Amino acid sequence: MKPLFNNVTIIGVGLIGGSLARVMKLKGLAGSITGAGRNRSTLETAIRIGVIDRMGQSSAHAAEDADLVVLASPVGTFTQIVREIGPHLKPGAILTDVGSVKGKLIKDIEGSIAPGVHYVPAHPIAGREKSGVAESTETLFQGRRCILTPTASTDKKALEAVRELWAAAGADVVIMDADLHDKVFAAVSHLPHVAAFAMMCAVEELNTGTEDYLQFSGAGFRDFTRIAASSPEMWKDICLMNREHLIKMIDRYIFSLNRFKREIIAGDETRLEKHLRSASDVRKRLG
Amino acid sequence: MKPLFNNVTIIGVGLIGGSLARVMKLKGLAGSITGAGRNRSTLETAIRIGVIDRMGQSSAHAAEDADLVVLASPVGTFTQIVREIGPHLKPGAILTDVGSVKGKLIKDIEGSIAPGVHYVPAHPIAGREKSGVAESTETLFQGRRCILTPTASTDKKALEAVRELWAAAGADVVIMDADLHDKVFAAVSHLPHVAAFAMMCAVEELNTGTEDYLQFSGAGFRDFTRIAASSPEMWKDICLMNREHLIKMIDRYIFSLNRFKREIIAGDETRLEKHLRSASDVRKRLG
Repeated sequence: MKPLFNNVTIIGVGLIGGSLARVMKLKGLAGSITGAGRNRSTLETAIRIGVIDRMGQSSAHAAEDADLVVLASPVGTFTQIVREIGPHLKPGAILTDVGSVKGKLIKDIEGSIAPGVHYVPAHPIAGREKSGVAESTETLFQGRRCILTPTASTDKKALEAVRELWAAAGADVVIMDADLHDKVFAAVSHLPHVAAFAMMCAVEELNTGTEDYLQFSGAGFRDFTRIAASSPEMWKDICLMNREHLIKMIDRYIFSLNRFKREIIAGDETRLEKHLRSASDVRKRLG
Repeated sequence: MKPLFNNVTIIGVGLIGGSLARVMKLKGLAGSITGAGRNRSTLETAIRIGVIDRMGQSSAHAAEDADLVVLASPVGTFTQIVREIGPHLKPGAILTDVGSVKGKLIKDIEGSIAPGVHYVPAHPIAGREKSGVAESTETLFQGRRCILTPTASTDKKALEAVRELWAAAGADVVIMDADLHDKVFAAVSHLPHVAAFAMMCAVEELNTGTEDYLQFSGAGFRDFTRIAASSPEMWKDICLMNREHLIKMIDRYIFSLNRFKREIIAGDETRLEKHLRSASDVRKRLG
């Protein structure tokens, strides 16, 4: 059987890029896989453990002959990388990504590639508690959602090929409007991260020894703030790139906190319990 | 060996009260255990599974002959219960509790008991993902902290007896100032709960179908909001009883959220990453 893509280039061979490479090898979807990225030792590891076949001297070099290029480095690097590789991509090449922000990024990327190159925006929702190519696995995307956010100008055949790739990885592929994607993830992912980071700052900045306070934190606090251990670089990028939707969600969140504050100050048991119950009911339904 | 307490009465035989009763039975710390509470069928279950020996017709009746009375019902009910049982407690009786708010409550309780009755405020930090007497277990407090917050007027012998009780349960007993206790738990427990409840409200109140949004929530969101499934009645009480410290923490939290908001609006990468990193570092140290 002919592979889905002949030459594949993955830029950023970490947990996500490495896992996708493993899927392509396992299912015979790629003729050969070239890795690129800023960290040479990561690429050497990836070759040694058989995740990729070779590495490129630069992203531009690695992307030159590619039929499929996957951007799997931190989302804040995509625009610059596309500027570098854009002129080197061959006509008919498919460019895709795994970034968790879509709207603004898509406009930037579409503006940096030649008309004959087909960009398909994608966002696989995969666990990121671990990171690095050594943690990559063929099963990372199994049963998880992968969201594709095509625009009016997205090539239909390229979209179908990328859909086939993620379906082969076992993902539940969902097509979604890019702006709705950014709204939804501002609400269910980006806001909770900012809220967890802000919680750690608020507790850290108590004047009386933080350690004294944190030693009394229980499972609830640890669950609540777990995502605050995420990468600051990655989250700086996501916050800035989804700025507009995220700010609206932070405002909604502060509104909701201020409402609880007012009810507590007023001793308004009825309204306080009503809002606590409504929150509790929604959370219970989530399982 | 003579038991530590002859007649013990537990008011509110749920997860915490039931688990403490089991410890006392296992270690022979009580001559007999009487249960009391508003839910008769809970008490019948507790007798059937051997957690308590008998039930009282009312809290006042059950407390009459007690050498130790443990308040283990929701913290908002303590003041009323103490008003009811106060006049019936015998001289020399020890009254203790398991409430997660201390300062104001202690003043209320100390004001409602006769001089010869000894009140020892306590707060065992135990997992409350489950609830009810059927879930009670002798090991619930093992390796967990139990905080005692004696006042200037707390009887030394009574304090020692309650300390011995919790040590027998395997808890790490810590003596702490009541006001500091309330400050610490406003920071590491009460604020995170309000923040999780507020997050659920903010997401629920998005106009465009909440379910559509929540179907895209991942492990991070679920971890973050898990504590929002907690009991609204219990948390209404805790919010109102620790009002002063909690409001200060909500203010600090909103300050921290607004700072992230300002940095995001300004596109201030340096300060944004600095604050994200500082939060991430503190959280990583927490393990």
